[in-house]
Amino acid sequence: MKILENKLKNELNIRTEKNYPIEGVEFIDIMPLIIQKETLKEIIDLFVEEIKSKNVDYIIAPEARGFLLGSAVADRLNVGCVPVRKQGKLPPTTVEAQIEYEKEYGKDIVELPKLVNTTYKNKNFYIVDDIYATGNTMEKIKETIEKLGGKVVGEGVILNIVELNNNKEVFSLIDVNEE
Amino acid sequence: MKILENKLKNELNIRTEKNYPIEGVEFIDIMPLIIQKETLKEIIDLFVEEIKSKNVDYIIAPEARGFLLGSAVADRLNVGCVPVRKQGKLPPTTVEAQIEYEKEYGKDIVELPKLVNTTYKNKNFYIVDDIYATGNTMEKIKETIEKLGGKVVGEGVILNIVELNNNKEVFSLIDVNEE
Repeated sequence: MKILENKLKNELNIRTEKNYPIEGVEFIDIMPLIIQKETLKEIIDLFVEEIKSKNVDYIIAPEARGFLLGSAVADRLNVGCVPVRKQGKLPPTTVEAQIEYEKEYGKDIVELPKLVNTTYKNKNFYIVDDIYATGNTMEKIKETIEKLGGKVVGEGVILNIVELNNNKEVFSLIDVNEE
Repeated sequence: MKILENKLKNELNIRTEKNYPIEGVEFIDIMPLIIQKETLKEIIDLFVEEIKSKNVDYIIAPEARGFLLGSAVADRLNVGCVPVRKQGKLPPTTVEAQIEYEKEYGKDIVELPKLVNTTYKNKNFYIVDDIYATGNTMEKIKETIEKLGGKVVGEGVILNIVELNNNKEVFSLIDVNEE
């Protein structure tokens, strides 16, 4: 999985911030990978290569950083993009399901929108996001989609922080170990 | 500008919600355009057609719905994507400038990230977002980039709510009049 791990942090220009967003955490900022055209293209290339044979109907993109990957991947694969939004951002009549989960720094609720002229049942979904830490967000999204009768055929991230999830099998472009 | 206005709301499946997010406002939900593969592709096609001759270095994408357009457009044009984030979401050392603006339902602050190994000076930027209402967000982002020495070569949205901005000249895929 460690496709990019041979590239130096300096080469990719990933930025880290100590004690952010809370004391004791070193935040890994993937924004440079989106800002630079070379790395943006490479990231989307790698996701497309991974997903293209999986017969996906929709890419699932969690707010907010997942939006930066999901629509570009969906556009390249010519499939739809389903944004998972923070609570209160989708008009109430368009919410299909609420998803409550524990995240690294607290609890949160996100909402899955209704699809258009169809349901989740028997569709294939692939979830993309920037970072896999504890993995709680993705796992809860996956559970919810499966309760609705859909199939999650894969999960992919840019960065997998393997020490936080016991090295769970998820597609990742870079695996990192926190100190 | 009214490229799609001959298409019926029912054909595009745009959803509206009355009295959301506040009493008296009818919210226009563009999510169906992202969720459906046909309209996602068409939207990105139209933005790319508009922007491709403008010699753009970076697409500017305001959080959150702008993220759903910005990275896909940037990927197709093979340029970088600069996410404009809500206050507190960028690690402090990576913030280039804060931008305070009035929006339709209150006041807000967003932050522009530093570029990578370069500055905003003498670069060409194109701002994409979902909806142009009063236009305050986009205009403040534009002002800030120009203060940094960059050039904003255009602004594009899916929906222009022309009655809220005196029909300002902005590239839009759909022009709507509120009742």
